[in-house]
Amino acid sequence: MLSRARRVADAPRAAASLRHAAAASLRRASRLFGAAPRLAVAERSARYAELSSDDVAAFRTMASSVLEGAEACRPYNVDWMSKWEGRARVVLRPASTAEVSAILKYCDARRLAVVPQGGKTGLVGGSVPVHDEVVLSLARMDRIEAFDADTGVATMEAGVVLGDLDAFLRERGFVAPLDLGASGTCTVGGNLATNAGGVRFVRYGSLRGSCVGVEFVKADGTVVDCASVPLRKDNTGYALPQLLIGSEGTLGVITRLALAAPPRPSAVSVAWLACDDFDGVRGALALARRHLAEVLSAIEFVDGNALRAVLDRERDLDDPLAGGAARFRVLVECAGSDGAHDGAKLERFLEAAFDDGCVSDGVLAPSATKAERLWRLREGVSDSMTAAGFVYKYDVSLPHAHLYRLVDECRDRLAAAGFPDGEEINVAGYGHVGDANLHLNVCDFFGYREPLRAALEPWVFERVAALGGSVSAEHGVGQCKTDYLHLNKPPPALALMAELKRAMDPNLILNPYKVLPPALLDEP
Amino acid sequence: MLSRARRVADAPRAAASLRHAAAASLRRASRLFGAAPRLAVAERSARYAELSSDDVAAFRTMASSVLEGAEACRPYNVDWMSKWEGRARVVLRPASTAEVSAILKYCDARRLAVVPQGGKTGLVGGSVPVHDEVVLSLARMDRIEAFDADTGVATMEAGVVLGDLDAFLRERGFVAPLDLGASGTCTVGGNLATNAGGVRFVRYGSLRGSCVGVEFVKADGTVVDCASVPLRKDNTGYALPQLLIGSEGTLGVITRLALAAPPRPSAVSVAWLACDDFDGVRGALALARRHLAEVLSAIEFVDGNALRAVLDRERDLDDPLAGGAARFRVLVECAGSDGAHDGAKLERFLEAAFDDGCVSDGVLAPSATKAERLWRLREGVSDSMTAAGFVYKYDVSLPHAHLYRLVDECRDRLAAAGFPDGEEINVAGYGHVGDANLHLNVCDFFGYREPLRAALEPWVFERVAALGGSVSAEHGVGQCKTDYLHLNKPPPALALMAELKRAMDPNLILNPYKVLPPALLDEP
Repeated sequence: MLSRARRVADAPRAAASLRHAAAASLRRASRLFGAAPRLAVAERSARYAELSSDDVAAFRTMASSVLEGAEACRPYNVDWMSKWEGRARVVLRPASTAEVSAILKYCDARRLAVVPQGGKTGLVGGSVPVHDEVVLSLARMDRIEAFDADTGVATMEAGVVLGDLDAFLRERGFVAPLDLGASGTCTVGGNLATNAGGVRFVRYGSLRGSCVGVEFVKADGTVVDCASVPLRKDNTGYALPQLLIGSEGTLGVITRLALAAPPRPSAVSVAWLACDDFDGVRGALALARRHLAEVLSAIEFVDGNALRAVLDRERDLDDPLAGGAARFRVLVECAGSDGAHDGAKLERFLEAAFDDGCVSDGVLAPSATKAERLWRLREGVSDSMTAAGFVYKYDVSLPHAHLYRLVDECRDRLAAAGFPDGEEINVAGYGHVGDANLHLNVCDFFGYREPLRAALEPWVFERVAALGGSVSAEHGVGQCKTDYLHLNKPPPALALMAELKRAMDPNLILNPYKVLPPALLDEP
Repeated sequence: MLSRARRVADAPRAAASLRHAAAASLRRASRLFGAAPRLAVAERSARYAELSSDDVAAFRTMASSVLEGAEACRPYNVDWMSKWEGRARVVLRPASTAEVSAILKYCDARRLAVVPQGGKTGLVGGSVPVHDEVVLSLARMDRIEAFDADTGVATMEAGVVLGDLDAFLRERGFVAPLDLGASGTCTVGGNLATNAGGVRFVRYGSLRGSCVGVEFVKADGTVVDCASVPLRKDNTGYALPQLLIGSEGTLGVITRLALAAPPRPSAVSVAWLACDDFDGVRGALALARRHLAEVLSAIEFVDGNALRAVLDRERDLDDPLAGGAARFRVLVECAGSDGAHDGAKLERFLEAAFDDGCVSDGVLAPSATKAERLWRLREGVSDSMTAAGFVYKYDVSLPHAHLYRLVDECRDRLAAAGFPDGEEINVAGYGHVGDANLHLNVCDFFGYREPLRAALEPWVFERVAALGGSVSAEHGVGQCKTDYLHLNKPPPALALMAELKRAMDPNLILNPYKVLPPALLDEP
């Protein structure tokens, strides 16, 4: 069976489809007419003060790096997709928790709104200002402070880049418990603040399990240190770190943290499979769970449109299974302590998958380099979609039975609204099938067009909720989904969230207009 | 190497040592003089109303089961160790979330204090009344409501017994993500409320990672449903379930929950090893992490005193490694999807461990029955210590380098105070070495004696904190450790916990005198 599956991973690259080449030229044309407009945002609240030159002077006494002026601030004002843009007039880049504390204390007293910022790779506009909020960048706090080889626990500042942490851990026989496409840029503080998921979730689970300590600064400048005794088990009081995880900078600013790292697997294998339909993808998942079990380290899927978007952009890549009629590709990664054992399990899995018929074709990466190229076919989707036009990115989780149904229904709906998938738009589905986490991306090669948006929203969110899913699986809420939170959380839950926000940040200076609908925070 | 290790697990049972036989007779004598006195407790707060007959009449309209009178209430008033005893005059046993809501709404309005109660197997007096609080038992809410075979997520009521859940899941090819000695009695709601750890933690991690939904009722009766869309990934707002996990019934009453279960491993192997000293135990742990890696499912240790306590009580058990001079036993369990692979890994581990010298002897359980008997040698320690006299149970986590040092220092300290380990007391150390979680138990065969207690406390807690550990690894705080919370959490963290408590339970009716030091909640 392995011989059937083990094909060379550098088969001739499929030519980019004509329709996509045409689309690219349309896109270029549309760009001549200007960039996509800014999305609608919440109105600036009058509760916040306007920045004065006295404020900037004060900041210079408390922050070791202060940037001022439109030019210097611009990289901190615009998100990486150029979708959201704030107009902060000052960017503070503290080098210590003490600096963060002094800054927040000052801002709280002055009622200056603040946006905490990490690697700025989020997808929901959470880390850039909506209006003129002060940017508080943690990027300079990037030291890994301690590592315990007995437990695998690393303690670090919030601005450490995830990829740097992973490299540090690998040298010591461990591995970061999470990995995502943005690992070269995103920071661990941002990962925690957004409860990032990624491709190792299926193996190592949620950051809620891996995080064993958080130090954060409250809106009033109080430092709450729950990171200095970073133990795997510690049941002394309420889970303050957990409250910060996923709060997207609205309850406090994460300054230090401790993560428990799993041992690095010594052997890694990657398979790339073709499935004719999404039931085949689900079948492959079930068989992978059974046969790969404890060595399954990732299981991801892309549909044909997602794959084509990558191949159109990343010209050095190719699909080793090109030429077949299968609509889906599944990437399966095994990682374990014995390559021979893992190989035997993978062989059994493939045999079962071919016998079952859920998988119609497949290759095993013959080398780490080839494996990385297969990974790029999956991890390149997000950037490739973004590069091709104006993209609506929906990150949802759904019961497996409905996971791809949403993509099909979306195509039907857009076609009915005059936007057939193909020439002008690209509707793609991909994601972490092992976690029931779908990324539905709709790229408009013509740039932002209101009728397309109106056809998509709120329909996508409402449909997800109706199908029993979450409108945000791993990306969070940011400024993008505040209006849809109510689809997943009943009024008592939202009311309690608002109470917690008011208790921890009574002047509401932290990351305003994000996560909770602003109206929820207006005094009753 | 396997032949050296594979000895029959039913070697002749070591005779109970003379000193322990003598101790048992002393213990019987001491019991003639009466039971251990109740431990000191916080004073009853005047903020709470006294139960009236009108209240009981009202409860009968809202709860489908109401128990009244000293006799009927007694089992709900006394903890299983007979260490803490309350004097509730009424026990409410609702059958639904709606009943819980009605009860709490009433109690909040009336300022009646309430103790939520699960299986009552906790070790810190958290689930029994301190004074006359109303007992709210979730035991009748014991339905498993739904199971998703695609994801392994089970949704259930809070009163489901952990062992019943595990049996339910095993029939469906999955396994509960936690297991502990009390699994036949403890409830999943109690497990969540206390953030229980147990023996599968080293493999499946914290409940914080496994729990994908909680429904709870706030003190004022508001139902907060975050359990009805039980997805592995859901980043829509603040982590309310996480706030409830480990809050020990002080922030809300957990009524329903959803847990993500891992697939059941098809093969399980258990080894029982002898280590001459604790460095040997640490060495075995390091080698197990390296060689067993992804199939390591438990690694536990007991010292000689802990083992003797079990053998003295459980007369049908024996130590297959009896006769040697080694002070420690380590139980290693592997669980995986391929018994042959796991066996090969286990063999490599044992070879490395014998070569290294960290392990001096060992057996592999030749059958599931024998494996279970080995597990009883570990899991029987807690009950055996409790049965032998008045026991001080300390559940701490510590850096591995200091883990057993605490036990040695404790023996030295008690000997210097006139309580040498042996005739009158038994100082035992055991626990989850893979999680750096030590259970230090001190059993006084003579019953409760204040000078022994004074020699132990607060020294143990202060020493743990000085060594960089947590005063509660997995048992929680209850009414037992409120005074020591400050050793692990700085004042700003405690102040924030108190703020959260006041925000969620302004009349402080939920599980008073527990978790937070009562003085912290007095109005400033």
